[in-house]
Amino acid sequence: MRILVVNPNTTASMTRKIGAAARAAASPGTEIIAVNPAEGPVSIEGYYDEAMSLPGLLKTVAEHRDADAVIIACFDDTGLDAVRCMTEAPVIGIGEAGFHAASIVSNKFSVVTTLSRSIPAIEHNLVRYGLASRCSKVRASEVPVLDLEHEGSSARAKISAEIGRAVSEDRAEAIVLGCAGMTDLAASLSAEHGLPVIDGVAAAVAIVEGFVRIGLKTSSRGGYAAPVNKSNPAVA
Amino acid sequence: MRILVVNPNTTASMTRKIGAAARAAASPGTEIIAVNPAEGPVSIEGYYDEAMSLPGLLKTVAEHRDADAVIIACFDDTGLDAVRCMTEAPVIGIGEAGFHAASIVSNKFSVVTTLSRSIPAIEHNLVRYGLASRCSKVRASEVPVLDLEHEGSSARAKISAEIGRAVSEDRAEAIVLGCAGMTDLAASLSAEHGLPVIDGVAAAVAIVEGFVRIGLKTSSRGGYAAPVNKSNPAVA
Amino acid sequence: MRILVVNPNTTASMTRKIGAAARAAASPGTEIIAVNPAEGPVSIEGYYDEAMSLPGLLKTVAEHRDADAVIIACFDDTGLDAVRCMTEAPVIGIGEAGFHAASIVSNKFSVVTTLSRSIPAIEHNLVRYGLASRCSKVRASEVPVLDLEHEGSSARAKISAEIGRAVSEDRAEAIVLGCAGMTDLAASLSAEHGLPVIDGVAAAVAIVEGFVRIGLKTSSRGGYAAPVNKSNPAVA
Amino acid sequence: MRILVVNPNTTASMTRKIGAAARAAASPGTEIIAVNPAEGPVSIEGYYDEAMSLPGLLKTVAEHRDADAVIIACFDDTGLDAVRCMTEAPVIGIGEAGFHAASIVSNKFSVVTTLSRSIPAIEHNLVRYGLASRCSKVRASEVPVLDLEHEGSSARAKISAEIGRAVSEDRAEAIVLGCAGMTDLAASLSAEHGLPVIDGVAAAVAIVEGFVRIGLKTSSRGGYAAPVNKSNPAVA
Amino acid sequence: MRILVVNPNTTASMTRKIGAAARAAASPGTEIIAVNPAEGPVSIEGYYDEAMSLPGLLKTVAEHRDADAVIIACFDDTGLDAVRCMTEAPVIGIGEAGFHAASIVSNKFSVVTTLSRSIPAIEHNLVRYGLASRCSKVRASEVPVLDLEHEGSSARAKISAEIGRAVSEDRAEAIVLGCAGMTDLAASLSAEHGLPVIDGVAAAVAIVEGFVRIGLKTSSRGGYAAPVNKSNPAVA
Amino acid sequence: MRILVVNPNTTASMTRKIGAAARAAASPGTEIIAVNPAEGPVSIEGYYDEAMSLPGLLKTVAEHRDADAVIIACFDDTGLDAVRCMTEAPVIGIGEAGFHAASIVSNKFSVVTTLSRSIPAIEHNLVRYGLASRCSKVRASEVPVLDLEHEGSSARAKISAEIGRAVSEDRAEAIVLGCAGMTDLAASLSAEHGLPVIDGVAAAVAIVEGFVRIGLKTSSRGGYAAPVNKSNPAVA
Repeated sequence: MRILVVNPNTTASMTRKIGAAARAAASPGTEIIAVNPAEGPVSIEGYYDEAMSLPGLLKTVAEHRDADAVIIACFDDTGLDAVRCMTEAPVIGIGEAGFHAASIVSNKFSVVTTLSRSIPAIEHNLVRYGLASRCSKVRASEVPVLDLEHEGSSARAKISAEIGRAVSEDRAEAIVLGCAGMTDLAASLSAEHGLPVIDGVAAAVAIVEGFVRIGLKTSSRGGYAAPVNKSNPAVA
Repeated sequence: MRILVVNPNTTASMTRKIGAAARAAASPGTEIIAVNPAEGPVSIEGYYDEAMSLPGLLKTVAEHRDADAVIIACFDDTGLDAVRCMTEAPVIGIGEAGFHAASIVSNKFSVVTTLSRSIPAIEHNLVRYGLASRCSKVRASEVPVLDLEHEGSSARAKISAEIGRAVSEDRAEAIVLGCAGMTDLAASLSAEHGLPVIDGVAAAVAIVEGFVRIGLKTSSRGGYAAPVNKSNPAVA
Repeated sequence: MRILVVNPNTTASMTRKIGAAARAAASPGTEIIAVNPAEGPVSIEGYYDEAMSLPGLLKTVAEHRDADAVIIACFDDTGLDAVRCMTEAPVIGIGEAGFHAASIVSNKFSVVTTLSRSIPAIEHNLVRYGLASRCSKVRASEVPVLDLEHEGSSARAKISAEIGRAVSEDRAEAIVLGCAGMTDLAASLSAEHGLPVIDGVAAAVAIVEGFVRIGLKTSSRGGYAAPVNKSNPAVA
Repeated sequence: MRILVVNPNTTASMTRKIGAAARAAASPGTEIIAVNPAEGPVSIEGYYDEAMSLPGLLKTVAEHRDADAVIIACFDDTGLDAVRCMTEAPVIGIGEAGFHAASIVSNKFSVVTTLSRSIPAIEHNLVRYGLASRCSKVRASEVPVLDLEHEGSSARAKISAEIGRAVSEDRAEAIVLGCAGMTDLAASLSAEHGLPVIDGVAAAVAIVEGFVRIGLKTSSRGGYAAPVNKSNPAVA
Repeated sequence: MRILVVNPNTTASMTRKIGAAARAAASPGTEIIAVNPAEGPVSIEGYYDEAMSLPGLLKTVAEHRDADAVIIACFDDTGLDAVRCMTEAPVIGIGEAGFHAASIVSNKFSVVTTLSRSIPAIEHNLVRYGLASRCSKVRASEVPVLDLEHEGSSARAKISAEIGRAVSEDRAEAIVLGCAGMTDLAASLSAEHGLPVIDGVAAAVAIVEGFVRIGLKTSSRGGYAAPVNKSNPAVA
Repeated sequence: MRILVVNPNTTASMTRKIGAAARAAASPGTEIIAVNPAEGPVSIEGYYDEAMSLPGLLKTVAEHRDADAVIIACFDDTGLDAVRCMTEAPVIGIGEAGFHAASIVSNKFSVVTTLSRSIPAIEHNLVRYGLASRCSKVRASEVPVLDLEHEGSSARAKISAEIGRAVSEDRAEAIVLGCAGMTDLAASLSAEHGLPVIDGVAAAVAIVEGFVRIGLKTSSRGGYAAPVNKSNPAVA
């Protein structure tokens, strides 16, 4: 089984970290193809960066059409619906995967993301997926995405402190980490706080690997039907 | 990895069919333990049967405390919350699994279940999980649960007809089959109708197997904390 | 008129307190039959205890089939839907009664219950009944259920403090006490805080007594239809 | 106990019918004071009539300040919030009472009202009370309010037909009759269709009588606080 | 174009302030007719005042039937639905206008109104319009309406402090001022806090002027159909 | 005042039609700049086309940074959030404008769009804006976008038939036309069916022109803050 994991930003160190996390989560026989576009934003922090990353993201997906599943490794689930129109393979975003996983192991969860400016896009997704009622609060640690790539930053401490507040103030029973760049922190934060701290990358691998095994595909009826071949070059 | 699959009713032929479906969905190294209680209702059709099946269900789970994951193989997700209090292993119901899976592969899905009397309990679960907004309609095929165990019944034809109505009237992009006893029909109905027809047993195996692999456990904070040892014999 | 009031736990002192509260709320000619099962949990604190109390609860109801109405005297409304399948008499839970009453005498209410672990089940019920939008917050006083049975505990002080927070922080216009064991505190807490403090036992008696008087019965169509006589011994 | 039942329109024959229904629903010792304003619309069919009936309605309530409870006998629950600011007695509208009662005896109910133009106001109330999720559909029989006062009209037949459609198309488990003028039809329609057909007048009497008995009052904190004595003559 | 701006309370100084704000917001050729009823409450603070202002409000609207648009200049949107039944001209409330405007320029907004007692009516409107999910919180500055008419009161300072809390605690991206009497404060508060502070009077003028220009009228089908001419004098 | 109207697809005839509609809706002194990107899909029918149109759309907006307001003239509101991050001018999508306008002139509206495949994206927007509860149904006429550009097609007849169904089956009190290419049909369809048929282009002009006049800007706090200047060329 080959799972395409696309980091929609162009920061290769983050792609490597995401790839490692995906491989750690996958079954022995599963191949993880972790890639990022050649061009686009170096990090995705808000709606504008999302939009600017889309051409590179879709081009990257189009170059790996034989993948058995696709993971969009940005917590905003950038381009999720568009990618589902490109393939019948199952497609999942790491935000989406984290929300579904948290809904299955807890009554209520909180999200701890990077900057406040990213909160509305995450809340928007929660409402659209139907899971807003399961989320106590989307919280920002005010750690910029690229600080997660720097050894010695205070990123982990700030995230841990925000988890503490989620537990005491939100009655969160689980935490979803709100950035692909936090993937390496989940296990130690879970141990520290004594509750599930969910990395969306691992959750996404766990879910789509299972979907491939049971033959579950993206619906090609209705909203995810293949695009009509008009002037859309990436489809041609 | 050992996954406990509990059919909460006492019909052994259904348990065998569920076990076969679970094994077909599982990875090679995964052991499926498909069991049913010794006592309780022969089928679960509505709230009363759900309640009557609970003692047997919980006793069965307590007898298999070393399982790495638990699947409740009744579409009503009978006793789901109670079982989550008994173990830190991930626990999923087949209704819940079907709803989450359908939400990931389609914009909107419909459910096709057995009798009308089961509809309110399913709708109740959809609201509670947050996924009611993703479900177009819960439909009844008016096939009693035990008819699914009889060769030569008109069960498949009635279910197929109801799927046809879901596609044309509800704009359903995927179907969730609303009874564990329909597990053997999913593949052929999917081929017939040209859209994902989801069997909750397979979806549940796919999801919890992944959760075990990544070490995701049920939260033991808040609502799923282990019960205080008062007079609860199954816990002792 | 005979109203069956079932305390689903086995603590007789609590049953006596509940019976007294129900009698104080009832009209002169109404007979209150306050009972509890012989076996099951001594208190209901969370989903697991709920499930373990069900067989005793349903057996107790089956033994009093001639009651004109049934009240389930646990704030989780344990087994409510199942009991409605057993009888055409009106059936109400004390949580449900408290929520409906508070919705009629205030714009917004808060709930003050016992332990945090009981909060998710109460929130689940609020969502399912439709009244979550009317409830500002479900709060825990962190008073264990059985402490309510001990003279001289700090239970009342903790509950009163939590009511104070509900008024100042939640803009609650009414309070619903979230445990049958608090039934004797409602009047004095209402006087102390100057707003309606609602005891679900009294509210339940008030509502179902009225329903019996006007001949309103539980619907026997759809989800509350009588269970099919398969292997369900309590029905036979 | 004295319950004020205000019909906000000026049609005395309807007031008499409402009064009779309220008396039939009340306990022996309860006095029903059924009144209507001297001036205002002869029937309330839509938002405009609602507004025009308010001065007369509030004046009528102000003239009976010693009532132990107030029922607003119009299915739109005209002026409900304003009346709650005038008194600490419990106040209920017959629409509100019908919705709460139906929510307690069924999983889902439908409303059958008079004219289509009244539907939005009823839907508005359902959303505001929180009970929209419990209502399958608000249906119009296209019977004008005053036709309900005429012997020999086809009103009952039209309403019965609409109930039939609610049962078959909406999966309604109970019906709420959507006009005070239908109060005399509930029992026979219930018998005919074999499910609870709820008259809001009877439901309102049942509920507020109970509230008076247990001493439950309208909150005077927040939105229902007594109006400041500025230039509001009816308060002075 | 002639826009009728009705202040439903009888305080002429507030009407003058509202009229000036409306004229400042209007296009050069637009005539603003700012009026208030001769009789009724001097301010509208809660449900009771709303009801008492309705006869004067509707009479005032009826006297200006040739207006091209109607603005109800009370933040509770008093009588909005009833006025829509009286005319095919577009009708908007200043609360409604503020909510829609804030939804278009921000992800989430908070409301800062006068007294706590007005909060439930505002929340009720948000739910009914569908925009509750876009509003973080409705906050009270505890400034009585008429204090806004007094030079030298601490009103502005209290409102500004509440805006500060909305920004820091609610993550509000815009503020809607919750009283027509605050119309003159919007610009300076917006400059002070660096985010849109929306005056409903200006927003209402902006929106309905546009609607008149494009010929958009209030629907006369369904709930806003003209009232049947029974005993409704203002219609005749 | 200069309003930028961006048609995100590359079909110039549609851009001309949109420009004409916008000019007809604008005030005399307002300049309408109607443009489309040089590259991208010829029509936007579903999520994939949306994503592919984004680079051209954002580039076009960046070339007209001095516009006083921006209208996105695609009913999917493609790129709406991203464009709001690029400017403090008010930005509105024609879908969004149509939904808000319909919410102000009716109790409930239906949408009539082109193809079924576009329905989920529209429903997604309705949920995200908060206005899903105001929309009865999103309907497809099954007219492809480009057929709207062909004289003599059956497009108008199909759309009119679908409006008829919305009126009779959905109780729609207003209709929102679900494609920029339908802009020239609104007036005649409104006359034919006797209810408001809203063209989003005209509604968008009406609303943002007013916003410019009163100085209302897009919030630059939170989700719409200007993007950090990393590697985003269109911002530089």
